Amino acid sequence: MTGRVSAASRRGRRPGSPDTRAAILRAARALFAANGYAGTTIRAVAAAAGVDAALVHHYFGAKDDLFVAALELPVDPRVALAPAIEGGPDGAAERMLGVFLSVWDNPENRLPLLALVRGMFDPDGQRLLREGFLPAILQPVGVALGLERPEVRMPLLASQVLGLIVVRYVLEVEPVASLPADQVVAIYAPTLQHYLTGPLPTP
Amino acid sequence: MTGRVSAASRRGRRPGSPDTRAAILRAARALFAANGYAGTTIRAVAAAAGVDAALVHHYFGAKDDLFVAALELPVDPRVALAPAIEGGPDGAAERMLGVFLSVWDNPENRLPLLALVRGMFDPDGQRLLREGFLPAILQPVGVALGLERPEVRMPLLASQVLGLIVVRYVLEVEPVASLPADQVVAIYAPTLQHYLTGPLPTP
Repeated sequence: MTGRVSAASRRGRRPGSPDTRAAILRAARALFAANGYAGTTIRAVAAAAGVDAALVHHYFGAKDDLFVAALELPVDPRVALAPAIEGGPDGAAERMLGVFLSVWDNPENRLPLLALVRGMFDPDGQRLLREGFLPAILQPVGVALGLERPEVRMPLLASQVLGLIVVRYVLEVEPVASLPADQVVAIYAPTLQHYLTGPLPTP
Repeated sequence: MTGRVSAASRRGRRPGSPDTRAAILRAARALFAANGYAGTTIRAVAAAAGVDAALVHHYFGAKDDLFVAALELPVDPRVALAPAIEGGPDGAAERMLGVFLSVWDNPENRLPLLALVRGMFDPDGQRLLREGFLPAILQPVGVALGLERPEVRMPLLASQVLGLIVVRYVLEVEPVASLPADQVVAIYAPTLQHYLTGPLPTP
């Protein structure tokens, strides 16, 4: 236990424990859902969980790490997408789609991923997606790829990926639901690549 | 009141009335949701509503008319899309997208349309979409356009349209949520046209 944690304990705050970890995640999820990613600070999460901010950092690292942990995803999308980003914008859609399908096509991952998507119809879940996942997870991918106007392109990419999720995994519409991954890539990679690097209408 | 209705009455079934109409719609919605479009007959709906099949025909016409009525959409998509289909496959995506946006961008239509989309996460709503809306409403559009392999192309089109619905109207992600309709058409029509008439990977 670090000196900082002991200091927190001396101030009557809860020390580190599995319960504390869970309390931090609950507080983080509630605050990210209520206030979005930009409107949530580690300090506010710590206060809501009744712990010291240093303990939050100790357990979860930076704010984006805490956000990913709060989403309880089976795979950290930043880690999974890193190799796809490394190759640069050419062919990025095909590589990203391959990663996406390897994660979503695995039945063990499906339920927690669908839980996040299902949130789109309640206000908290909407904010987690719109003011959390998109700016904190997806937008940095566009920036890392060096895209021109990533703040337009990544929502376009999201619109086709979300539609693919709905048709393949939620509604399970045939033939899309049963297509082998390489066929899904062949169909959708050109669309996604167009959104990433193709011409955009002038605003 | 027609002779048929009187015959129904004599057999102890309910005569035509606003209540009867509502009972037919309730029965239709329940059966389409439970058994899909193909698995539902006018006769079964009539039986479930406790009326004669002729009365269902009298009020609602053919099965696809009953289905559209049961969905309680603010606009009949078959009527709205008819002019877009007339021009044939060239430019069909742009025309269909124009119709789609004129309906969805009207705030008065938004709530009942979103109710249908929200159904994607419950089993009945899923069947209404997958085994009702897609085969009974969307698939005939692809057939009317004379597309090659409409049973593949219309689900692809649906995947991008559903993703656009999620981003523009459900999550309201900027800039997509606030783009003028003509910009949305400029961005998405090429994708949709590609799904309608572009090359498909060999199965």
